[in-house]
Amino acid sequence: MLTVTSDEARTAEDVTERTGSAATPGAVAVIGTGVIALGWIALFAAAGYEVRISSTRPDAEEHVREALALYADSLPQGALPLQKLTERLVFTPDVESAVTGVEAVQENALEDLELKQALFARIAAAAPADALLLSSTSTLLPDDLGALLPEPGRVVVGHPFNPPHIVPLVEVVAGEQAEAGLIERVVAFYRELGKVPVVLRRAVPGFVANRLQSALLRESIHLVREGVVTVDELDAVVTSSIGPRWAVVGPFRAFHLAGGPGGLRHWLEHLGKGLELSWTGLGNPPVDRATVDLLLEQVDASFGTEPYRSLAARRDVEQNAVIAAVAAARAEQE
Amino acid sequence: MLTVTSDEARTAEDVTERTGSAATPGAVAVIGTGVIALGWIALFAAAGYEVRISSTRPDAEEHVREALALYADSLPQGALPLQKLTERLVFTPDVESAVTGVEAVQENALEDLELKQALFARIAAAAPADALLLSSTSTLLPDDLGALLPEPGRVVVGHPFNPPHIVPLVEVVAGEQAEAGLIERVVAFYRELGKVPVVLRRAVPGFVANRLQSALLRESIHLVREGVVTVDELDAVVTSSIGPRWAVVGPFRAFHLAGGPGGLRHWLEHLGKGLELSWTGLGNPPVDRATVDLLLEQVDASFGTEPYRSLAARRDVEQNAVIAAVAAARAEQE
Repeated sequence: MLTVTSDEARTAEDVTERTGSAATPGAVAVIGTGVIALGWIALFAAAGYEVRISSTRPDAEEHVREALALYADSLPQGALPLQKLTERLVFTPDVESAVTGVEAVQENALEDLELKQALFARIAAAAPADALLLSSTSTLLPDDLGALLPEPGRVVVGHPFNPPHIVPLVEVVAGEQAEAGLIERVVAFYRELGKVPVVLRRAVPGFVANRLQSALLRESIHLVREGVVTVDELDAVVTSSIGPRWAVVGPFRAFHLAGGPGGLRHWLEHLGKGLELSWTGLGNPPVDRATVDLLLEQVDASFGTEPYRSLAARRDVEQNAVIAAVAAARAEQE
Repeated sequence: MLTVTSDEARTAEDVTERTGSAATPGAVAVIGTGVIALGWIALFAAAGYEVRISSTRPDAEEHVREALALYADSLPQGALPLQKLTERLVFTPDVESAVTGVEAVQENALEDLELKQALFARIAAAAPADALLLSSTSTLLPDDLGALLPEPGRVVVGHPFNPPHIVPLVEVVAGEQAEAGLIERVVAFYRELGKVPVVLRRAVPGFVANRLQSALLRESIHLVREGVVTVDELDAVVTSSIGPRWAVVGPFRAFHLAGGPGGLRHWLEHLGKGLELSWTGLGNPPVDRATVDLLLEQVDASFGTEPYRSLAARRDVEQNAVIAAVAAARAEQE
């Protein structure tokens, strides 16, 4: 469409391609081809980015194509032809060529601090000075990840949820030395992808959502061990009550509404009085062999017999339906 | 429509009306007119029951009509004309006349054991011998509630979630002396109403869903106190990740899928190793004046300024949309 008539024009076009914009996304690099990396690849490709994939797997190309074939039907934007996604992929032999000229790098290597530190040092040396250096880590802290860089504050955690091409949240966690403006650029980058970035005010191990999941799982395992419900019944309790509730209002809004017109003030001052006391009754189960065996026995007798792919595909279709339903209900009310 | 020609026929018709069926619901009694009672009234009236309401409020009739006017648009069946609901209500001066001839009694009195015990003794004396005696209590146990009855096992907890006309779950908790068959009748009764009854295998304080909520709230308050996120940001984390996830798959299915094709077995044996250790890092905040003030200050600066009615109405519309979306996605996949 655009006729290039001079070197100057070519350069301008190249720059546009590299840095991208809402209209013309440029290139991004994805390090790794594990489950989380695959979700990011689907998401970036669906958004129109050239996706440079750096993987040590000899069969990386086939492996990614297979996953995208599964994901192509459950993209938040709606189904996309597989070809539209795969034509945007570039497999590179090494990290340096993957990150050259990209807008952003999303790293998904093993949760090994030394490995990630060395990786980010190589990435920072080869990527553009203004490229976003993002890590999908769920356990490591940004200051540690950037420790070997000339500017350690450049590495920012962008922690997604499984599956990343569907679940909206990205927890954004910057280090103490992060430059002013960097967090805003990271937020804008994820928002343009259709994600919901939430910036943590300070880094804590496990960040926020996984700590909340962990707290709920602890009590769930306790109740199964105590014989109050099976894993199946516990799942049914959640999907028919607090799950749909929390898809719509978070816990603070939920308890605010539980207080009636008096809100959280009324709830905390009247109904919430026993809160601290009630916490003393919550469980703290051991995760020993007997506990694991009990859980697995109940899982094997139920949904454990269904193949992973069909369980995952059903979850994805329903997950998208929930997210779309909330968005539609909100749009209608505005 | 039916011409009554003999006393025998009258009796037969009365019995049909009283015991009801899928086609012709009979009468139910609702004790109380608090928030939970109002949800049950809407639910029973929408399902076609004659609803006998026993309340000590002098303005009970006006109070119930006002609430139903608010609920009429957000019934799971879709909007119903207010008149359709209110024409099915009967306000009675006392508990005995409310429960005479009903299929079921749903009690929603204050959470005061002695009061409820005395109430159930009166209810049991006046209601049909086969009427279901159900309590909405969230804190008391069925054996205690039925203690003054000739058959203490008759009282069964049917604990709903706010708002009861929308959230599907009813936790069914029977006492040790509950007769065989009674639990099945309670489950059938709630299922016919469109609810999702889950029978607890044994009674524990707080039952299941509120214990899970409490566990999540404890960590939520901890993270706000630690300055990691505000109440608003915490709510955003939940509604954009674990909320929509748990609307679709409960925690055990979620972690089973997080394990990939190896399932929960793989997850527990590899990724779950640090589970017990991670629990030691979770918070156990005091709910003191400073904590309450911090939470209320953040709520007041945010959603706390929105009127209760509009917040609640939005929640209800979105909640129904989520539940309908999951049901539709499941139906489509079957």
